[in-house]
Amino acid sequence: MNKQLKLANRPEGLPDSSTWVLEQNAMPTIGEGELLIKIHYISLDPAMRGWIRDVRSYIPPVQIGEVMRAGAVGEVVASENPAFKVGDYVTGTGGVQQYVATNGKGWIKLHGSAENLPLFLGTLGMPGFTAYFGLLDVGELKAGERVLVSGGAGAVGSVVGQIAKIKGCHVVGIAGGAEKCRYMVEELGFDEAIDYKSESVREAIREKCKAGIDVYFDNVGGEILDAALTRINRKARVVICGAISQYNATEAMSGPANYLSLLVNRARMEGFIVFDYAKDYAKAGAEMAQWMKEGKLKSKEAIFEGIENFHDTFLRLFNGDKKGKLVLKVSEN
Amino acid sequence: MNKQLKLANRPEGLPDSSTWVLEQNAMPTIGEGELLIKIHYISLDPAMRGWIRDVRSYIPPVQIGEVMRAGAVGEVVASENPAFKVGDYVTGTGGVQQYVATNGKGWIKLHGSAENLPLFLGTLGMPGFTAYFGLLDVGELKAGERVLVSGGAGAVGSVVGQIAKIKGCHVVGIAGGAEKCRYMVEELGFDEAIDYKSESVREAIREKCKAGIDVYFDNVGGEILDAALTRINRKARVVICGAISQYNATEAMSGPANYLSLLVNRARMEGFIVFDYAKDYAKAGAEMAQWMKEGKLKSKEAIFEGIENFHDTFLRLFNGDKKGKLVLKVSEN
Repeated sequence: MNKQLKLANRPEGLPDSSTWVLEQNAMPTIGEGELLIKIHYISLDPAMRGWIRDVRSYIPPVQIGEVMRAGAVGEVVASENPAFKVGDYVTGTGGVQQYVATNGKGWIKLHGSAENLPLFLGTLGMPGFTAYFGLLDVGELKAGERVLVSGGAGAVGSVVGQIAKIKGCHVVGIAGGAEKCRYMVEELGFDEAIDYKSESVREAIREKCKAGIDVYFDNVGGEILDAALTRINRKARVVICGAISQYNATEAMSGPANYLSLLVNRARMEGFIVFDYAKDYAKAGAEMAQWMKEGKLKSKEAIFEGIENFHDTFLRLFNGDKKGKLVLKVSEN
Repeated sequence: MNKQLKLANRPEGLPDSSTWVLEQNAMPTIGEGELLIKIHYISLDPAMRGWIRDVRSYIPPVQIGEVMRAGAVGEVVASENPAFKVGDYVTGTGGVQQYVATNGKGWIKLHGSAENLPLFLGTLGMPGFTAYFGLLDVGELKAGERVLVSGGAGAVGSVVGQIAKIKGCHVVGIAGGAEKCRYMVEELGFDEAIDYKSESVREAIREKCKAGIDVYFDNVGGEILDAALTRINRKARVVICGAISQYNATEAMSGPANYLSLLVNRARMEGFIVFDYAKDYAKAGAEMAQWMKEGKLKSKEAIFEGIENFHDTFLRLFNGDKKGKLVLKVSEN
């Protein structure tokens, strides 16, 4: 049997357990050119909140009754597609389910082992690529610049800060709680940490970004974005990667009231979607794997177990209760 | 005697007549290397509202008791500076006064006549350069793109729209009132006009920018910026030139709530300051003068008279009561 988690209804605000329904369905069968993948891990990402919103966006919304969309890593367990053979490890948009049949389009073979599969949902997967291209391409980071990153202990932010350190920059990370702040500085090597739960972010930025901000990589939006805008340098780049503070808002979105700082400082604010860089994933992945080998780039995955626990695990994206890349194991290796 | 208008106090919200004080002072004298300029016209610009605000910005604020800062055109009436001779027409930051003594730094000689001096405060001056560099350099306008410009009947916006037409683009202008809308379409050649005073800007943008927006040139901020963000195309550029709707706000600035449209559309929002382009003014001015000669670029100045009327004229920037470049004649030719 194949356990599948489907979208049951569209939530207002934070999803609750009635947002989803878990079903047990027959195993999918495959035809010519297809393969069957057993999904080991699925990725939990803030962007998923957007995917269940019924609005025009960069990707169509998940429809009610459909399997919830999710990045996944797994193993080919049957194949009638010559490009894949049984035992191959693969990654793609598998959905929150235990098995998926596909023609292989959009699936990539991984040179990994069962043990390190979660890495390909994190630092060597979408969040890592998001950090890499967001910082280096959209943010046009230059050696020696001053970088501020929000969500600095998260899957994307932790990689942003570490790449900035590799590039010889001064890095300040923002996260919630003393332990995440310790993690950013002591384990990831950031220069400074700001705990948004215990200090005034605006004052802390003034104090810890004394030479201003050349690149602000924003994962959170809201008041933290506004605070960062007050300290940007001339020709600064504000990279808009996400706005997790706003994703569950039931009231109108709050926009950055200090956006005229862009004018005064001849600065820009720019958004991007990592999918646009698909053709360069392999190159970025190779470079990041090399950094990991050299000990310059660390990866942490927060791994939870059981497709039944999808909802509780999903909420950890928003209540701050995890460090690094949030992953759910949905079947046995 | 030299009539001078000085800043008397810093206004909250819209300035009133007590913001300024008009004085009659002795004529300035000049020493070696200096020149005396009789100011004919001063420029009235929305940015002046920012210059009297006591905040860190791209230029120091005008201090209380100082002559109000203003762009000016005038005539050299005495010179002990070999670079200038009596009778030269010049432009520079002369201030709201009838005469100014200077060492000549920042002043540029004009090849104009007494009659067309106001043009050098408008289309062939700062507003024209603002339109030119904002649209072509910051906005990276390409032939055939879709352009939306707010303040489209104003000194900057009217030039933005006309340059976009010269570059083969589709242009929609936003302005207040039927007459300004008629002016944009019939006299300036814009494709469509939106009257923010009589229609819903959001609906009108949807209807008149059917193919979306590649470049939005924003002079106004507030709700109009927010509405424009809902219709930007992929890789759009939002040029932040000003935010006149917010300049007299006494409450907190309102930021663009729809800024995540930048993310979805891989778009950017960028500010600039025209002064950064000073070294290229001459080239831009020559190109725009050529367009004017060919009848492709029209210029309109709204000329008022009398330094005594500075305050009432200044308010026309904000109450919409003018078309084209607002200029005040402060002494006889």
